[in-house]
Amino acid sequence: MRALYWDGRDLGLVPSFPKPTADLAAVVKVHLAGICATDLQIFAGYMGFTGIPGHEFVGSVEEGPREWVGKRVVGEINFGCGQCGSCRAGLERHCGNRRVMGILNANGAFAEFVALPLKNLHAVPEKMDDEEAVFVEPLAAAFEILTQVQLHSGDEVLVLGDGKLGNLCAQVVQLTGAKVTVLGKHSDKLALLKNGGIRTLLLENWQPQAFDVIVEATGSQSGFELALSAVRPRGTLVLKSTIAAKHQVSLAPVVINEVNVIGSRCGPFPEALTALAAKQIEVKPLIEKIYSLNDGRSAVAHAGKRGARKILVKP
Amino acid sequence: MRALYWDGRDLGLVPSFPKPTADLAAVVKVHLAGICATDLQIFAGYMGFTGIPGHEFVGSVEEGPREWVGKRVVGEINFGCGQCGSCRAGLERHCGNRRVMGILNANGAFAEFVALPLKNLHAVPEKMDDEEAVFVEPLAAAFEILTQVQLHSGDEVLVLGDGKLGNLCAQVVQLTGAKVTVLGKHSDKLALLKNGGIRTLLLENWQPQAFDVIVEATGSQSGFELALSAVRPRGTLVLKSTIAAKHQVSLAPVVINEVNVIGSRCGPFPEALTALAAKQIEVKPLIEKIYSLNDGRSAVAHAGKRGARKILVKP
Repeated sequence: MRALYWDGRDLGLVPSFPKPTADLAAVVKVHLAGICATDLQIFAGYMGFTGIPGHEFVGSVEEGPREWVGKRVVGEINFGCGQCGSCRAGLERHCGNRRVMGILNANGAFAEFVALPLKNLHAVPEKMDDEEAVFVEPLAAAFEILTQVQLHSGDEVLVLGDGKLGNLCAQVVQLTGAKVTVLGKHSDKLALLKNGGIRTLLLENWQPQAFDVIVEATGSQSGFELALSAVRPRGTLVLKSTIAAKHQVSLAPVVINEVNVIGSRCGPFPEALTALAAKQIEVKPLIEKIYSLNDGRSAVAHAGKRGARKILVKP
Repeated sequence: MRALYWDGRDLGLVPSFPKPTADLAAVVKVHLAGICATDLQIFAGYMGFTGIPGHEFVGSVEEGPREWVGKRVVGEINFGCGQCGSCRAGLERHCGNRRVMGILNANGAFAEFVALPLKNLHAVPEKMDDEEAVFVEPLAAAFEILTQVQLHSGDEVLVLGDGKLGNLCAQVVQLTGAKVTVLGKHSDKLALLKNGGIRTLLLENWQPQAFDVIVEATGSQSGFELALSAVRPRGTLVLKSTIAAKHQVSLAPVVINEVNVIGSRCGPFPEALTALAAKQIEVKPLIEKIYSLNDGRSAVAHAGKRGARKILVKP
């Protein structure tokens, strides 16, 4: 029973034997875990996290209540306190006392076993492969957009960024009947999106246009300014990139054009599971390589390479 | 017939004889004009404007269609092209080809006479003093908040900034039944707000709290960061300050807390006129001094002093 441990400076294998507790009542055997941009930011010092990282996973319940044992599951990553106003309102994702799996005061899924609260578990349909289910967490984050913005058929939506998150956001927005354009730097990544009727555009061919809605998913500091230049007056800019560092920004265009900027983070798992089960969203082409836990450091190095698609870890 | 002219470096008196034209069909004799923060930014190089500044005014129609001549009026400042999608949707304030009085390609009201389109005029009720009516433009900007954010009785709203705009925003928000707190640096300015049941707080006594809605009206770069620290998860941050310069910002809290940031600029004149006529909003205590047009440079210098209330110019 091993895990990858981040001590604030380096990543190494450690023994790990999570046992069910009153609040983390399920111990899940991890089948696959995904490395995402937030993990890479953690390895750059974000959140000051030390512990076992990893928050995208699929596995099966090894220990816990009888009705769960053996079930294949994915898990929501925010562990709310259950007591505060946010938790009582069903918004554990915004609990001020929350722990976040692999990010804040809770161990994550780059491990053979991970413990989490029962209420965070979602059963995975039998027909869904592990290679699909491991995308439920980031796909749920893409579905969060639909809970925040009322999209209409025919709305012109620009997704900035052709990475994993941009790809998933584009596919999700496309489900609403909106007209989706993805602007990116990588023709091979943009090519992954061409089948669904999504328009794609290389950044080098960008001509200023005005869109009703922008989804900023570049993960880079320059994305915000480009987004502001491409949204129509009174349009909506959904911010998906979490840029921890401060950077130079002018907010004057937000005021002058009365733009609505909406921060968007974690989202609803049920919608993501349903869409994946219905084959409405294609995720497998996003996988670049699967590493063993032993090769965790190589996996992280690969994930950090410019242009890398999704790197998975198989304990 | 004289006006104050800004040549990009200095402000001086020039002769000015505006005549009605097809699009600027009304020539208004200016009774009073207000100096606002945007004017001060123009004198610092914002928008690269040269011409006659000034966009807050009350006057009487001197030349134009017979039904308007002699009427006391205030005027909306955005001159739309009338042809584009924004204009056809009634959003001339967001016309991409607009001229803006005293700000962009159109002369303003620091003058004995100013010309503007008929559709921009609003008649001023007889009982309203010039010293009240001159506040219609900034008060309309405060009312814009109510067109953008659904406020509920009991919502906790924090207005950041005790200047002219913060004061007007606080009074407008108070009309909705929301619980308003104004955070500012000046006890004398905060004292102007105490009669209406608005809570006031000096910045030096600020303790972190979470509000449902923040109205950022500080006019300073530091306001945005403070606002982000004071808004609850999924709360709303209305941005009123136009800070032309780029500054260091981290947008991560917007994403993590899923904050809704709404830029807010010019607003509806009818609501402002109605509220002033009904004595729902008190503006006269905001006046610091009235200068003659001859003393325009002194007026601008006074308006730029830290802590100055509203400076008016009387041609």
